[in-house]
Amino acid sequence: MNETLVTVVGNVATEPESQVTATGLIVTRFRLATTSRRWDAERGAWTDGATSFYTVRAWRSLGSNVKESVCLGEPLVVQGRLRIRQDEKDGKRYLGAELEAVAIGHDLARGVARFTRSVGGGG
Amino acid sequence: MNETLVTVVGNVATEPESQVTATGLIVTRFRLATTSRRWDAERGAWTDGATSFYTVRAWRSLGSNVKESVCLGEPLVVQGRLRIRQDEKDGKRYLGAELEAVAIGHDLARGVARFTRSVGGGG
Amino acid sequence: MNETLVTVVGNVATEPESQVTATGLIVTRFRLATTSRRWDAERGAWTDGATSFYTVRAWRSLGSNVKESVCLGEPLVVQGRLRIRQDEKDGKRYLGAELEAVAIGHDLARGVARFTRSVGGGG
Amino acid sequence: MNETLVTVVGNVATEPESQVTATGLIVTRFRLATTSRRWDAERGAWTDGATSFYTVRAWRSLGSNVKESVCLGEPLVVQGRLRIRQDEKDGKRYLGAELEAVAIGHDLARGVARFTRSVGGGG
Repeated sequence: MNETLVTVVGNVATEPESQVTATGLIVTRFRLATTSRRWDAERGAWTDGATSFYTVRAWRSLGSNVKESVCLGEPLVVQGRLRIRQDEKDGKRYLGAELEAVAIGHDLARGVARFTRSVGGGG
Repeated sequence: MNETLVTVVGNVATEPESQVTATGLIVTRFRLATTSRRWDAERGAWTDGATSFYTVRAWRSLGSNVKESVCLGEPLVVQGRLRIRQDEKDGKRYLGAELEAVAIGHDLARGVARFTRSVGGGG
Repeated sequence: MNETLVTVVGNVATEPESQVTATGLIVTRFRLATTSRRWDAERGAWTDGATSFYTVRAWRSLGSNVKESVCLGEPLVVQGRLRIRQDEKDGKRYLGAELEAVAIGHDLARGVARFTRSVGGGG
Repeated sequence: MNETLVTVVGNVATEPESQVTATGLIVTRFRLATTSRRWDAERGAWTDGATSFYTVRAWRSLGSNVKESVCLGEPLVVQGRLRIRQDEKDGKRYLGAELEAVAIGHDLARGVARFTRSVGGGG
């Protein structure tokens, strides 16, 4: 079956943290918060929806560039593969929405950015 | 901020159930399960990902048509607005991924369908 | 770089036609038309956008099931990989938006459907 | 019917240019090129697809921030509403894929960025 690709526009809710896996890959992790606003046809007005949180993981050069570029509170556009995870630990149920990032950028609707291409930067 | 629109291709995991709200709107609710398969570049092979579950809600004519057309186990394409919900009840934390459906159809990659347009079936 | 995955909700604008490729694969092709409606914040009203046309191609079992299930004028949800194609022929420029379909279903917001799973219908 | 929301990851193919409309709105326009790579199951290898071009329009603060931040050749993530446009002029047919941008960011898979939030930057 298909993977679920989604784009989330939101704000960085935890400081990005990087780790190196046993196989030597860098991965950067942070939480992303998004609050929807949409037209409520019944009420005839825009309404604030609830806030949704995602755990974003970025690998390899995307991971290291995010670590170097992204700070707590900044607005982002994140495209990634979505997974809804359910775990049991100590008799408690944990659920989480995880995004394995494909592309991440600062949302230029909220500010300006100065970009520098990686040397030898693939793609 | 933006709503998060996503398309999930998966299977119906609970029998669709309909209710009528206090304001007289029909809403149909079911669980949708999707298992991703994707290319693992490190291993050089396709792998099965974990299964993700979504709670789908369909309103108005979409809701009544889903109730009439969709059965447990059938494969669907669901486009909807995604919300990751966090609730507390009796000291327990509940999380869930909810899709407010925009469009729903049987996935013709898995079988055939005979369609009948609603009389007066507006937009 | 990334493929561009998109979901289009629209109506079948040409009768689906099937062919068999030299390598023995079935492919079904049709045109899909979609007319957007969206909230115009300046005018304070919903407006009809222009109509966009896509050429949809469906392969293998998806292609044969679409041929058997889908008729001119029916409403569909189509998820696919988007490609904007530019060709030159006889000094004229041809452009087209092509969708290589991943999943296709009748839009249950517009009517009801009876689904039959393919025998041996793979995953 | 629904609008078609899509996310395109690609490179800026023309220098962004800004204009002010008769009603005093700023709009910035540029071309975006994307080349897909995908797994060809038949050949058992990654293949380069064709390059697709989009005309991107960004309005208001997104438009002015893009003008200030984005240069020819830079890699972007662009989320927007897609429209396939067909015009006739002087007996010739023109087609184009247009993206009315919702969110735009530099793709951090390709380099690093320093972001500065707009003062009073709306939200």
